[in-house]
Amino acid sequence: MSGNIHDRLAELARISDEPDALTRAFLSPALKRSHALVRKWMEATGLAVHCDAGGNLIGRREATEGAAGAKTLVVGSHLDTVRAAGLYDGPLGVLAGIAVAAELAETPLPFALEVVGFSDEEGLRYQTAYLGSRFYSGRFPAEWLELTDAENIPLRQAAIDWGSDPADFLEQEPREDLLGYLELHIEQGPVLEQENLSVGVVTAIAGQSRVALKLTGAPGHAGTTPMTLRRDALAGAAEFIAEVERVGHRHPESLGLVATVGQLTVEPGASNVIPGRTEFTLDLRHPDNAVREAALAELETAFKRIAAERRLDAVWIVRQENPAVPCDARFIEALVEAASHEQAVVPELVSGAGHDAVALSPLCPVGMLFVTCRDGLSHHPDEFTAPEHIDVAVAVLTRAVRALAEDI
Amino acid sequence: MSGNIHDRLAELARISDEPDALTRAFLSPALKRSHALVRKWMEATGLAVHCDAGGNLIGRREATEGAAGAKTLVVGSHLDTVRAAGLYDGPLGVLAGIAVAAELAETPLPFALEVVGFSDEEGLRYQTAYLGSRFYSGRFPAEWLELTDAENIPLRQAAIDWGSDPADFLEQEPREDLLGYLELHIEQGPVLEQENLSVGVVTAIAGQSRVALKLTGAPGHAGTTPMTLRRDALAGAAEFIAEVERVGHRHPESLGLVATVGQLTVEPGASNVIPGRTEFTLDLRHPDNAVREAALAELETAFKRIAAERRLDAVWIVRQENPAVPCDARFIEALVEAASHEQAVVPELVSGAGHDAVALSPLCPVGMLFVTCRDGLSHHPDEFTAPEHIDVAVAVLTRAVRALAEDI
Repeated sequence: MSGNIHDRLAELARISDEPDALTRAFLSPALKRSHALVRKWMEATGLAVHCDAGGNLIGRREATEGAAGAKTLVVGSHLDTVRAAGLYDGPLGVLAGIAVAAELAETPLPFALEVVGFSDEEGLRYQTAYLGSRFYSGRFPAEWLELTDAENIPLRQAAIDWGSDPADFLEQEPREDLLGYLELHIEQGPVLEQENLSVGVVTAIAGQSRVALKLTGAPGHAGTTPMTLRRDALAGAAEFIAEVERVGHRHPESLGLVATVGQLTVEPGASNVIPGRTEFTLDLRHPDNAVREAALAELETAFKRIAAERRLDAVWIVRQENPAVPCDARFIEALVEAASHEQAVVPELVSGAGHDAVALSPLCPVGMLFVTCRDGLSHHPDEFTAPEHIDVAVAVLTRAVRALAEDI
Repeated sequence: MSGNIHDRLAELARISDEPDALTRAFLSPALKRSHALVRKWMEATGLAVHCDAGGNLIGRREATEGAAGAKTLVVGSHLDTVRAAGLYDGPLGVLAGIAVAAELAETPLPFALEVVGFSDEEGLRYQTAYLGSRFYSGRFPAEWLELTDAENIPLRQAAIDWGSDPADFLEQEPREDLLGYLELHIEQGPVLEQENLSVGVVTAIAGQSRVALKLTGAPGHAGTTPMTLRRDALAGAAEFIAEVERVGHRHPESLGLVATVGQLTVEPGASNVIPGRTEFTLDLRHPDNAVREAALAELETAFKRIAAERRLDAVWIVRQENPAVPCDARFIEALVEAASHEQAVVPELVSGAGHDAVALSPLCPVGMLFVTCRDGLSHHPDEFTAPEHIDVAVAVLTRAVRALAEDI
């Protein structure tokens, strides 16, 4: 079975928006091409497939009883990627959902099963994550339609180009039929590999803040503007980046604070012109909301002090703030029980990364299973999980869904 | 006359490689279109015009005597610009050269006169300045043909696309017929404006080093990679930028050291991915070669220390090193004498910016006249010099050329 998933992961990875790297952005041409492939695999498993207006690909099997009140269990992950991504982050969870549906094809289920490939979890295109899962759950904020991408294309227009009606983004009702959401994902960290284990069960997802920042000074000639008269936007950004690193290092424990400036652009951007403007990002995470909020406030104060001292105009826009999300006790129990058939020890983990479960958590209980990955590496072409670990993970996920079906 | 020059500057400024800003790069489509216009103005002045293989536009008038041994006086500047440039930096000196040729059209001259619009002074496209004037003077280094631009186009290919034979870049002989080079340029600094004067005479051009830098660490997930395990290339660059600023500020006098990081790119460049690689530039200038060389060595040491401490791979490539260039005593004298007919005081200035005179200085004496500019501003769309100052500057330049002709 994992051989199948490995082959499918490799086939999917050839579908990219860039020639030499795997990059699939929200509502991009590559996302559309990936749908054709995944749809084929879903249909081969007997699922009824459609794509919603938010670009989420949904394969559904109705509850066996046919009872009008049957709820829906969702199993899935996302089909978008970061820039220069690996094969596993996202697609693995979607293909695992299809594998679970295939395993249970002949098993009566008291709930409907939806396998979902969300259209945006990474936030690559609009610097805002969970665009797909927020749409799916009927909680898409109206103002996000006005977000613009690097080519200045508003999300509203991207929806039209994709073939959707932007009005649908606001009319999607919150789903009231959801029994829960389960997701298999690579760990993206070192714990399981160090303990030589295939899987672990997630107890909570760390809270996350994403901020978009701008500093505007004055461009000028690099040879004739004395140092004392400069309003150098990049020098200001550099001072702030040092501050971000300092705040991050203050919490050295392994599941501590992580603080990252991952994106930065400079204008005008010539070697002999003083930078007049920079735009950059801040990503801040911690499993304790209070710690994260305190660090965010401290960095905002530092940012505004640096800008004032350097006579720079400062813009600080919080693009996203996701509180820490606890996983559902019953889902944790079912996953631990299922995993105990495969492993003597089943570690419980906190996820430092965000997942679509965050977007679905206001609507229904969520649960997550982590599978080990080599060197804890993710968001990189060398991302790798061996087929035997994927076999274990799919077996655990299948067993947990079966247990939930029997327990309802 | 200045009205004419102002109109021509505005007309030239509409020719750009970018839709909303004035940007003309070396051997670009906009440079080619600018040639058609300037050629027309040169020919209207009676000059015989051709474009050399390096993309320099040359309008020539032979010496009146027709003597085989007559040398050539060059008056000009450059037609390329920085990104989002103003109207004056470069084109003013070319149009002033045409105006001098027009003024002296009926005056016998014992030397040939060449008005030149060089194809590259700013180094925008290949991060290497004086591509045009180095070609013109027959001192184009063979290895520059292999430089690549932001789109990875080698200079060799850019030459072919322009319509030139790359072999010509190496076969151009050093000019032995040059009597000297004179250039009018905006001051790009505040001195003349503060003293309420139109022009000043340049005594020397500051030396300049340009360095291309790369730091390579490891990309990784911004949520799951602990701060202590990161090899963040942007955080390393930020620490170096702070060092550059600190070294620059150590020489606070008005004609002191200037140190600038003007360009910086980040890869992979997503908000939730740790930067694995940055490329950036360093521009360092000082009128005293020893001071500049000491600062450069200090910064190279700091760069390598920062990289080692952060386990980053470091690349430091000195792209250009131009020693300070003294102007010719006879040219200084002729320009000061000519300016004294217009101003009670004629200040002598050091140029913090580099100019084509740097590239020509190994071949012949050079001289430069500065005209005031508003707020000392350059490399910016708001660059401005009032027409009355341009009138004074062209009159001084014309008088100086006439004096040289009488004195030969």
